[in-house]
Amino acid sequence: MKLTLENVQDLVIGATFLGAGGGGDPYLGALAAQQQIARGRVAEVIPLQSVADDALVIPVAFVGAPTAFVEKLFTVSAARVCLERMETLLGRKADAVIAAEMGGLQSLVPFVVGAEVGLPVVDADGIGRAFPEIQMTTFGIEGVRAAPIVAVDVYGEALVIEASDNLRAETYTRAVCVAMGFQSMCSLYPMSGSTAKRVSVPNSATYALGIGRAIRGASQRQEDPFGALANYLRTTHYGHVEILFDGKIADLDRRTRGGWAVGSVRLTGLAGGGDRFEIDFKNEYLVARRNGRVEAIVPDLISIMDRDTAVPLAVENLKYGQRVKVVACGAPPQLRTSKALAVVGPAAFGLTESFVPLESLHPARP
Amino acid sequence: MKLTLENVQDLVIGATFLGAGGGGDPYLGALAAQQQIARGRVAEVIPLQSVADDALVIPVAFVGAPTAFVEKLFTVSAARVCLERMETLLGRKADAVIAAEMGGLQSLVPFVVGAEVGLPVVDADGIGRAFPEIQMTTFGIEGVRAAPIVAVDVYGEALVIEASDNLRAETYTRAVCVAMGFQSMCSLYPMSGSTAKRVSVPNSATYALGIGRAIRGASQRQEDPFGALANYLRTTHYGHVEILFDGKIADLDRRTRGGWAVGSVRLTGLAGGGDRFEIDFKNEYLVARRNGRVEAIVPDLISIMDRDTAVPLAVENLKYGQRVKVVACGAPPQLRTSKALAVVGPAAFGLTESFVPLESLHPARP
Repeated sequence: MKLTLENVQDLVIGATFLGAGGGGDPYLGALAAQQQIARGRVAEVIPLQSVADDALVIPVAFVGAPTAFVEKLFTVSAARVCLERMETLLGRKADAVIAAEMGGLQSLVPFVVGAEVGLPVVDADGIGRAFPEIQMTTFGIEGVRAAPIVAVDVYGEALVIEASDNLRAETYTRAVCVAMGFQSMCSLYPMSGSTAKRVSVPNSATYALGIGRAIRGASQRQEDPFGALANYLRTTHYGHVEILFDGKIADLDRRTRGGWAVGSVRLTGLAGGGDRFEIDFKNEYLVARRNGRVEAIVPDLISIMDRDTAVPLAVENLKYGQRVKVVACGAPPQLRTSKALAVVGPAAFGLTESFVPLESLHPARP
Repeated sequence: MKLTLENVQDLVIGATFLGAGGGGDPYLGALAAQQQIARGRVAEVIPLQSVADDALVIPVAFVGAPTAFVEKLFTVSAARVCLERMETLLGRKADAVIAAEMGGLQSLVPFVVGAEVGLPVVDADGIGRAFPEIQMTTFGIEGVRAAPIVAVDVYGEALVIEASDNLRAETYTRAVCVAMGFQSMCSLYPMSGSTAKRVSVPNSATYALGIGRAIRGASQRQEDPFGALANYLRTTHYGHVEILFDGKIADLDRRTRGGWAVGSVRLTGLAGGGDRFEIDFKNEYLVARRNGRVEAIVPDLISIMDRDTAVPLAVENLKYGQRVKVVACGAPPQLRTSKALAVVGPAAFGLTESFVPLESLHPARP
């Protein structure tokens, strides 16, 4: 599998859906990926199971507020510094790169880096969606140390963060990324191939491409893209799908605070009025409530999508009056274990509600 | 020359005077130094000119808000991590440590580190006083790069900051130190012996000890400690001395903001009323004004001292009602050049007044 000028757009749509509001607007990342492809630099995508046990796999990702990613270009040379500095630290060359998270802009980072340095991209990631903090990955949940972390600014200056604890690594990296202008390109969680196979969420790029293809294909055939999306997702580990709301954006409270985009969005029916439907976010959509009752909650995925084209909307692209549908789907099973819920469940985001799987909140009608 | 249980207290008093309000309360540092001495670990003090040209000299310092230093203990093991990580980065062992700044707690750091790792302490520093930012040293003024900087937290976790520009190094290190709880132990400005001889302010430890001895000796002999201080300073590169004010603290506005202790202190005569005398500070005392007119201004040194014992008071130890004298002395000549004033002159601290040397503000009375 390769990224081509044709399927970059599918990856963008699919990755934005999996981003669940976060992961950053992929527009600039898609431009960078397309430029690499046009130059003949294309990263090969390899299945997770094909990675050699003793390979060195390096996850790459932006750390910062998605609201900053749309305002500030990143250089490909920063990506190179980011990888090479990690190789120097570890005293060996990397064999492959991998997405730390499959969501929005983040999904494109390994493709841009891999193409730049000539390394394959593993078809997997550390979440199967996007999350706002470094420790919130299956890598971390399964005991891999996030440090050393190399954080690079737009000038190509590198900082190395050492921390035995992933939460402390998050704290320091966040402080650094804020000082860098709310974004930094990072390499982190360096791991062996055997570890990568044990702790990663597989098939991320395949699924992102599939989601994008389902939505784009249906739209081109003038069929219902939401139906096509649901049919495709049922073949993946995302499983259950629900359309939670159909209406428009009535209110939006969005701030860039502490290195994240935080706030909430309120929706009403197209004619106004009706149920009070609200979604809270911290980079990603965390919980959807109808009249105060939970309809979907993290780590399950919530997406706000254009109601006609099913193009998913990242937090930083929400606008007052947009006509949208809210779609939710289940999280990959790796995120729903009790060990995972301690790190990426509602309490990790300061929510008081317990996690209830989407399919339990919406039992099949008899 | 060696630091002994007897002369540590002289160093503390002299270094607090040279700290000009900043550099951190040396109490905890003095305890650490005394503990090292009691264990038989004593760092040898060597003259700047005796350092070999090809030696590796590593400056060490705390970076953070002095208001935090009085609340939080630092471990000697952090000091060891700080030095050893820098040695690993540079691929060679250090030959000596040196104070980044001779002021308050900072003056003791190289003695504690040197004793811990068995390295001599160079009798010199990078300012000849204390300043609040990393680029504000004669090292930086003379073109030495501050990076790589190793910043270590209380847990012994190390961050490495790379930056080609010293201002950017300051920005990133400050962000890191705030995330570390407003203080970090740093090694920075690594340099060769020949560079150290070219860019350092010499005799810092000798002068700090001399100042402390002058004040303590006079107090013990029940003579005027301010006169003894002035007599001693005239034999050093600090030259001119003025007692600017005699009174008490009438108001104090002190905050810990952005990683520094900032604010201002207002003094009145002992009976209250009289001239309006104010001193602004950012970690260090920056400018003293009587009825709005400048009486001393950075980089010249301003010190607030107990009016009976001449014990100098750091910013974080100022209290309402304290009876004090304000003493100013000239900066070392290296800080008064136009090149230096661009980095450590009034404008670098946001002050609108130009630098006027203390001796020009207070011409000798005929």
